[in-house]
Amino acid sequence: MQPRKIVIIGGVAAGMKTACRLRRLDADAQITVIDRTKEISYGACPLPYYIEGLFTDLDEVRKTPVGVLRDEAFFSNVKHFDTLVCTEALSIDREQRRVLVRDLASNVEQTLDYDTLVLATGNEPIMPPLPGMDLAGVLPLKTMVHAAKIDELAQTAQNAVIVGGGLIGLEVAEALVHRGVKVTLLEMKDQIMASALDFSTAALVHHELIQQGINLRLAEPLSSIEGSGGKVERVVTASGSYPADLVLMAIGVRPVVELARAAGIQLGSTGAIAVNEQMQSSDPRIYAVGDCAEATDLISGKKVYVPLGSTANKQGRVAANNICGYPERFPGILGSMVVRVFDINVARTGLSAEDALLNGYAAISHISSSPDIAHLYPGCKSIVIKLVADRKTRKLLGAQIAGGGVVDKRADIIVTALSMGATVDQLAQFDLCYAPPFANAMDAIIQAANALRNKMDGMADSMSPCEVKQRLDQGEELFLLDVRSPVEHAEVRIAGAHLVPLGALSKRLDEIPRDRLVVPFCKLSLRGYEAQLVLQQAGFTNVCYMEGGVIGWPYDLEK
Amino acid sequence: MQPRKIVIIGGVAAGMKTACRLRRLDADAQITVIDRTKEISYGACPLPYYIEGLFTDLDEVRKTPVGVLRDEAFFSNVKHFDTLVCTEALSIDREQRRVLVRDLASNVEQTLDYDTLVLATGNEPIMPPLPGMDLAGVLPLKTMVHAAKIDELAQTAQNAVIVGGGLIGLEVAEALVHRGVKVTLLEMKDQIMASALDFSTAALVHHELIQQGINLRLAEPLSSIEGSGGKVERVVTASGSYPADLVLMAIGVRPVVELARAAGIQLGSTGAIAVNEQMQSSDPRIYAVGDCAEATDLISGKKVYVPLGSTANKQGRVAANNICGYPERFPGILGSMVVRVFDINVARTGLSAEDALLNGYAAISHISSSPDIAHLYPGCKSIVIKLVADRKTRKLLGAQIAGGGVVDKRADIIVTALSMGATVDQLAQFDLCYAPPFANAMDAIIQAANALRNKMDGMADSMSPCEVKQRLDQGEELFLLDVRSPVEHAEVRIAGAHLVPLGALSKRLDEIPRDRLVVPFCKLSLRGYEAQLVLQQAGFTNVCYMEGGVIGWPYDLEK
Repeated sequence: MQPRKIVIIGGVAAGMKTACRLRRLDADAQITVIDRTKEISYGACPLPYYIEGLFTDLDEVRKTPVGVLRDEAFFSNVKHFDTLVCTEALSIDREQRRVLVRDLASNVEQTLDYDTLVLATGNEPIMPPLPGMDLAGVLPLKTMVHAAKIDELAQTAQNAVIVGGGLIGLEVAEALVHRGVKVTLLEMKDQIMASALDFSTAALVHHELIQQGINLRLAEPLSSIEGSGGKVERVVTASGSYPADLVLMAIGVRPVVELARAAGIQLGSTGAIAVNEQMQSSDPRIYAVGDCAEATDLISGKKVYVPLGSTANKQGRVAANNICGYPERFPGILGSMVVRVFDINVARTGLSAEDALLNGYAAISHISSSPDIAHLYPGCKSIVIKLVADRKTRKLLGAQIAGGGVVDKRADIIVTALSMGATVDQLAQFDLCYAPPFANAMDAIIQAANALRNKMDGMADSMSPCEVKQRLDQGEELFLLDVRSPVEHAEVRIAGAHLVPLGALSKRLDEIPRDRLVVPFCKLSLRGYEAQLVLQQAGFTNVCYMEGGVIGWPYDLEK
Repeated sequence: MQPRKIVIIGGVAAGMKTACRLRRLDADAQITVIDRTKEISYGACPLPYYIEGLFTDLDEVRKTPVGVLRDEAFFSNVKHFDTLVCTEALSIDREQRRVLVRDLASNVEQTLDYDTLVLATGNEPIMPPLPGMDLAGVLPLKTMVHAAKIDELAQTAQNAVIVGGGLIGLEVAEALVHRGVKVTLLEMKDQIMASALDFSTAALVHHELIQQGINLRLAEPLSSIEGSGGKVERVVTASGSYPADLVLMAIGVRPVVELARAAGIQLGSTGAIAVNEQMQSSDPRIYAVGDCAEATDLISGKKVYVPLGSTANKQGRVAANNICGYPERFPGILGSMVVRVFDINVARTGLSAEDALLNGYAAISHISSSPDIAHLYPGCKSIVIKLVADRKTRKLLGAQIAGGGVVDKRADIIVTALSMGATVDQLAQFDLCYAPPFANAMDAIIQAANALRNKMDGMADSMSPCEVKQRLDQGEELFLLDVRSPVEHAEVRIAGAHLVPLGALSKRLDEIPRDRLVVPFCKLSLRGYEAQLVLQQAGFTNVCYMEGGVIGWPYDLEK
């Protein structure tokens, strides 16, 4: 039997994963990876931490965990396949099953025959056609070259403007602040991470960014970038002008699909290459993996484009298995993400509450604040969990978790629950690991589930801190009832709230108006809920506790 | 309608959770909690950390996260129910539905009528009937009184003996070492945590305990405790005698069921009170929750007794819901546990490989070592994951995870997966959250799943480090093949292994014998697996890589 001939276009995450798995499955296959650049098999996700200075050798992003550089020689000697760097794929002849490629150094062209072709052409940063994009000091962050350049600029830059409040924008904003650069973050939407987070969660991040000295400009699209002598000097919007020695363009990425499109391969509604669950494109001999391919959202069933290294690696393995005759499906994604933003961590998975409603679900959500581990164990910090579920089926739809404590564990529990179709009732009974250094007896995620169940079942009435703030801002006369202790109240307060500690509430009912909506709250949310029960028992009919308490309040507090 | 009369016997975790939830569901119910002691609503799990000195106010274990003491006044004023402390339940009259109780201070007896009775009588430490148990300085750790006494003894103790290598024994052993006490840990089985961990995982803990200076005595049952003047001086076994100013008895606990038994309530096969999924005992008017009740193992379906605060809290809520007419089931447990042992964390859930085989499963397991986060991100540490699955259904059966890195996240992913009946194939595709500070693109648990799939599917042959060691100890002539780099080899080595770096292997095949079992390994496990493939491709028929690599090797290394 002739050995399989496999050509892989793109040698970063998905392409190299495909190649390595192929080699493990088939020692005889002829595997050739080509890449337009010299930067193969690098991790793009750590680049912001290089800029921050958390590691100093940029080549670390191309090394194995034990420190071996993953260059062409490594793949040849250790993984036993060929990598042609600085080699561009010019066209695909699907009929003859060959790819025309050009060596970018020598300009020599050659054709590579394939039995199976794998497209792993990745993404490219979107650079909007606005004035000034070509100025020196204006760049995206995708490659090691970009990271080195940003690192160099950061050595002397006084001011930076980050355009775009997505993952990369947030990570680099923080990195530059740690480097001593003044940072303006420009976001055209009224919140950061708009496609991933509800406003209520984004608001917690906004508060943190402002606390850390970022000049956060929301709902403010970029108009132009100006400079002199070919060098950037400022960023201009309809509302202002911001000095900048460095401008990071981070408004998003698009899939690189020109080669596929020219070859008549079907693109999906997202603009990325359409694939089936085996990662095959519309041509069954051609697979597409990683950031050039679209994926299915496991909750909504819709096609989505969420390019991430985790997905790329999984898809590469699935494609390789299928190519070698070991059938496997890639079912889809949940849009799971986690990001560190200064002193808080933010994770999300599944549908946001807003997306769940847009997708036609009878969505209900609740925000809970909890300590992440036993409060008496050193290092305990708070987290704020927003859980989203479907009232009809009681199935979980998504979660967003933010705070100083451990968020990724709770998010990954929800990832697993969503992947398996769990209800919020099932979540509440999971036998999660408990010991004081790791969790509370009722883990934060279980408390969050129970609070949402109370709300779903009509046992509790509540609203989010953002809704409370919005109503107050609109002039509604809510009666904010702080049921914490005087000691807690002395530390921090929500302006205008009336203090009656929970233990004294039943004796001081005359202080509470009966003609207004009463909104009890405490530090987390439990005493606020209990105050609601006390008031309802005493005949108050218009009570609604504030979810998440003081910890979940994403605005300034009085001190 | 008459208000419900509910009596709860036992005022620690399960009892108080039941009472608080009852009050929230029913403002009118007459709720009375009685407890034999004054120590109500305390957390027992943090007590080892008090002994360690991680917090200094012992009352913290009875405080809410915001610092309010949960005493009788708190429950009366804030939670609105009565608590009778230092009050013993003497007998239950199921016919008349009343409990005879005695105030232990005044010796006054009274009867309490109930519509519903909740037994939350907890556990008691097992004190074996061996000589010397009554000596001063010999005690278990269950209550705050015990913790205070151990803390006091630790101030002057030179030597301590811990009898029992379960959770409490391990936690207190560490605490005492941090207090400067020399610790001998005596365990009658040949491993610590014998009912929870396979030997292969326990071996990692053994190595850590010895490294940290613990005198670990396995397979060595206690014979007697000796002292003079009523005070302990040494612990004696068949093999030796160990000086001790302090002896912690931590061989296990038993459910407190005397009251239930005397009332004719059915006990289960585990000796704990038998309950249905609603937490009702054999008398539907009497519920049992927490450490006095048994539970169902969700995997095996068998009744088990695993007393833990997390389960107690969940059961209390379920009982309260059912009592108030909101039907709810407590499905069961997975025996999930997590414990910090010096510099490593250990978590487990579901069935161990040994238990899975005992339960008749076609169990297969694999041990994988991985960095817990991106290797270039500060704080990255290794973890060793043992995954157990059923060959027939491919369903996950359990996991054990140990190492310096984050183990609880991966264990809780498996808890969720087990609760929902996931296969190892499904696990491999979960869209877990990824960013360098939190995980690798292929998270450690997904790598572990894929490695197990390779083994299940016959794509890899492997054996555990313990099996390798056992075979070597038995004189088998394995050829241990270290395929790491010379730099790695110079740092630490497994004695007797032959070094051929993976990249050079195909050119140095003549160094590898063809007449012996060749066992390649590396730092983690991936290069070891690839070396196996290289050798098999070259015609070697007897190759089996060592799972977990050097990181998973639970024995001394050459330096």
